[in-house]
Amino acid sequence: MATLGLVEYADASPEVRAVYDDIMATRQTDWINNFWKALAHDPATLRRTWESIKQIMAPGALDAVTKEMIYLAVSASNQCPYCIASHTAGARKAGMTDAMFAEAMAVVGMANETNRLSSGYQVEIDDRFKA
Amino acid sequence: MATLGLVEYADASPEVRAVYDDIMATRQTDWINNFWKALAHDPATLRRTWESIKQIMAPGALDAVTKEMIYLAVSASNQCPYCIASHTAGARKAGMTDAMFAEAMAVVGMANETNRLSSGYQVEIDDRFKA
Amino acid sequence: MATLGLVEYADASPEVRAVYDDIMATRQTDWINNFWKALAHDPATLRRTWESIKQIMAPGALDAVTKEMIYLAVSASNQCPYCIASHTAGARKAGMTDAMFAEAMAVVGMANETNRLSSGYQVEIDDRFKA
Amino acid sequence: MATLGLVEYADASPEVRAVYDDIMATRQTDWINNFWKALAHDPATLRRTWESIKQIMAPGALDAVTKEMIYLAVSASNQCPYCIASHTAGARKAGMTDAMFAEAMAVVGMANETNRLSSGYQVEIDDRFKA
Amino acid sequence: MATLGLVEYADASPEVRAVYDDIMATRQTDWINNFWKALAHDPATLRRTWESIKQIMAPGALDAVTKEMIYLAVSASNQCPYCIASHTAGARKAGMTDAMFAEAMAVVGMANETNRLSSGYQVEIDDRFKA
Amino acid sequence: MATLGLVEYADASPEVRAVYDDIMATRQTDWINNFWKALAHDPATLRRTWESIKQIMAPGALDAVTKEMIYLAVSASNQCPYCIASHTAGARKAGMTDAMFAEAMAVVGMANETNRLSSGYQVEIDDRFKA
Repeated sequence: MATLGLVEYADASPEVRAVYDDIMATRQTDWINNFWKALAHDPATLRRTWESIKQIMAPGALDAVTKEMIYLAVSASNQCPYCIASHTAGARKAGMTDAMFAEAMAVVGMANETNRLSSGYQVEIDDRFKA
Repeated sequence: MATLGLVEYADASPEVRAVYDDIMATRQTDWINNFWKALAHDPATLRRTWESIKQIMAPGALDAVTKEMIYLAVSASNQCPYCIASHTAGARKAGMTDAMFAEAMAVVGMANETNRLSSGYQVEIDDRFKA
Repeated sequence: MATLGLVEYADASPEVRAVYDDIMATRQTDWINNFWKALAHDPATLRRTWESIKQIMAPGALDAVTKEMIYLAVSASNQCPYCIASHTAGARKAGMTDAMFAEAMAVVGMANETNRLSSGYQVEIDDRFKA
Repeated sequence: MATLGLVEYADASPEVRAVYDDIMATRQTDWINNFWKALAHDPATLRRTWESIKQIMAPGALDAVTKEMIYLAVSASNQCPYCIASHTAGARKAGMTDAMFAEAMAVVGMANETNRLSSGYQVEIDDRFKA
Repeated sequence: MATLGLVEYADASPEVRAVYDDIMATRQTDWINNFWKALAHDPATLRRTWESIKQIMAPGALDAVTKEMIYLAVSASNQCPYCIASHTAGARKAGMTDAMFAEAMAVVGMANETNRLSSGYQVEIDDRFKA
Repeated sequence: MATLGLVEYADASPEVRAVYDDIMATRQTDWINNFWKALAHDPATLRRTWESIKQIMAPGALDAVTKEMIYLAVSASNQCPYCIASHTAGARKAGMTDAMFAEAMAVVGMANETNRLSSGYQVEIDDRFKA
C-alpha cells in the first residue's frame, strides 16, 4: 500500500483537484493513476512534478511517442515496475506498436551490456569523442 | 588504461581485422574506437557484441536516430562516461540536433526522478495498467 | 519465498538466538523482521551485519532519525522494496513525520534527476570543488 | 568537455542571466558552477531545474543541512562524480562537519549492502510493514 | 502479466520452436521458462539472446557454476527479481550449495558497500593500479 | 582529491596503524592502497570495513579467486572506477588470467542485458522458481 495512502478526487482539496483536472484535460482521460494520488499528500510536490512532466513531455524537437519511449527505456533500465507499467501504457497511447516496443527493449538491453563492458574493461574515451 | 590494452589494426589477427573491417564499412568511417580495440583481446566477445549491435541498431520499426537516442538515454541514466561520449557522437551522426539532445536529457532526468518517487512512496500498479 | 527460508526464534541455534535477543533489546521490540530470519542461515553474516548496523545507526554526529532517513533515501533511490518498507517503519519509529518523509522523497527525486543531467551533459567538475 | 559547452555570464541571454542572478542571490555566492552553465543551452530546463531545486532545498520540515546530506547520500549511492563534489561543498556550507560526513557515508555504504542482501535472499516484506 | 504475453510451445512458429528445442536440449530440461516465452514475440531477439547466452555460459576458462554465480551476483546487485529467481535455480542446478550462495551474497553486499564508500570519499585510483 | 584527504602510515594514530599492519600482513604486501587511507579519518569505519572484508574474502565454500571475481563483477556492473581498478588487481593476484577476466566480463554484460529485458517485458516469475 502506498506509504501515505492515495487521495481520491472526492476527498481532494481544491488545490489537488486543480492538478487532477489539468492532468485529465491534458491527457484527455477521465481518470487519475495512482502515482498522482500518492503524491497528492504533498501538494507542492504534486504540482511541481506535474508541471515539469507537462512541460517536458509536450512535443517539441522530439515527438510525443519518442519521448514516451525514452521514458519507458529509462524506466526499464532502472527496473521500476510501476514506471514500466505506466509508461508502457503511455507510449502505446502515443502510438508505440509492439514492434517498436520490442526494438526499444533490444536497444535498452544492449546499452546495459556495453555500458558494463566499457566500464569493466576500463576503456578510455577516444580523443575524437572529446572534441 | 584499458585492462587488457588496445589492439590496433596493424597488430590484429585476421579474425579481428574482419570485424574491424565490417565496423568501418557498416558505419562508413575509417577508424575504430577504443571500445572495440579493448574487446579485441577476446575475439568471440568482439564478434558477438558487434553482430548484436549491428542487428539491433539497424533501422526497423524505429529509425536510426531514435535508436541512438535511446542508447544515449540509457547510458546517461547509467552514468557511463565512455558510452555517453561515444553515443552522443553516434546520435549526432545519425541526425540528433542540440535541441533533440536537450529534450532527451530532460526526459531522462524526469524519468529518474519519478522512478524514485513511485518506488519511495510504494505506489501500487493500477489495475488498468495490468490489462 | 526467501531463498533459504526463514529461521524462527523457536528453531534457532543459541548463536542465532543471541543475535535475535540483542536486536530486540537494542530496538526495544518483541519481534524479529524477515531480513534477519533470512540471513540466519549464515550465522556469521547475521552477526556481522547486525553488529555493523548497530554500530552505524547509533546516534553520534547525526541523530537517529537523520540516519534512518538517509537509509530510507538510499533504499528509495535503489528501489529496494523490502528496504523501503522496513526503513519507512524504522524512520517513523525514530520520529519521521509525513512531512519529513515527503520532503526527503522530493530531495531523493531531485538528486536522481540532476545526477543524470550532470552525467548526460558531461559536466566537468569545477576547480573550486576540488580544493 | 560539456556536450554543449558552458554559457558564461557575459555571453548569456537576459533569460539565462535572470536565473544566474537568482542562483547567486539565493545561495549568497558570487559565482555559478558548471552544472548551470551546461544546462543554460536549454533555458527552459535551466529555469525549471533551478526553480525545483530552490523549492525543494529550502528549509521546511527538514533543515538545510539534512537536505544537503540526503542529496549527497543519494549522489554517493549513484556514484555521480560531479554531484558528489558539488553537494559535498553544498553540505559543508550548510554546516556538515567531517564527522557528519563520515557517519552519513557509513549509512550509505550499509544501506547499499543490505539492499542487495534483502534482494539476493528474496526476503518477503513482513506483514507489519504493510500496515 | 508480460507486456506482450507468453508464447507457448503449442502456439509457436517453427522458428521459435527451433530455439525452444535448442534451449531444452542444451539445458537438458523439458520446459521453457517465462523469460523466453516473453521474448518469443520478437523472434530475432529471442534467437540472438539465446545464442549469446549459450555461447557465454558454456564452460571455458571458468566453469559453469562460477559463471552462474557471477550471473546471480550481478542480478542480486541489480535487484532484478525475475533474474534472481531464475539464476538461483540455474546456479543450484550447476552445483551451488547453500554455503556457496551465502558466501556469494556476502561478497555482493560488501562490494556494494565499498563501491559507495570509495565513490563517496572521492578516492583517487592508486598509480599502482593503473600499470 | 579524496574528500577528507589520505592518512599516510607515518601520520597515522596507533589505532589506524594497527589496521594498516593487519591489512599488509593478511595480504602479504608492503603498501596500503588509497581506499583505506581515505577511510582512516574515521577509524571506526576503517576497522569495521576491514574486519568485514577480511572475514568475507577468506576462502571458505568459495575460493579466493572466485570471491575476487564476484567482487570485480559487481564493481563492473556498478561502474565504480576505483573498485574496478583495485579488484582487477586483487583478482589477478589471486590467480585470475586474462581469459578468466574476459569470460567474467561477458557474463556481467549479458546479465545486465537480460536483467533489463526481463524487467522491461514485465516477465512474471515462473512457479517452478518459487518452490
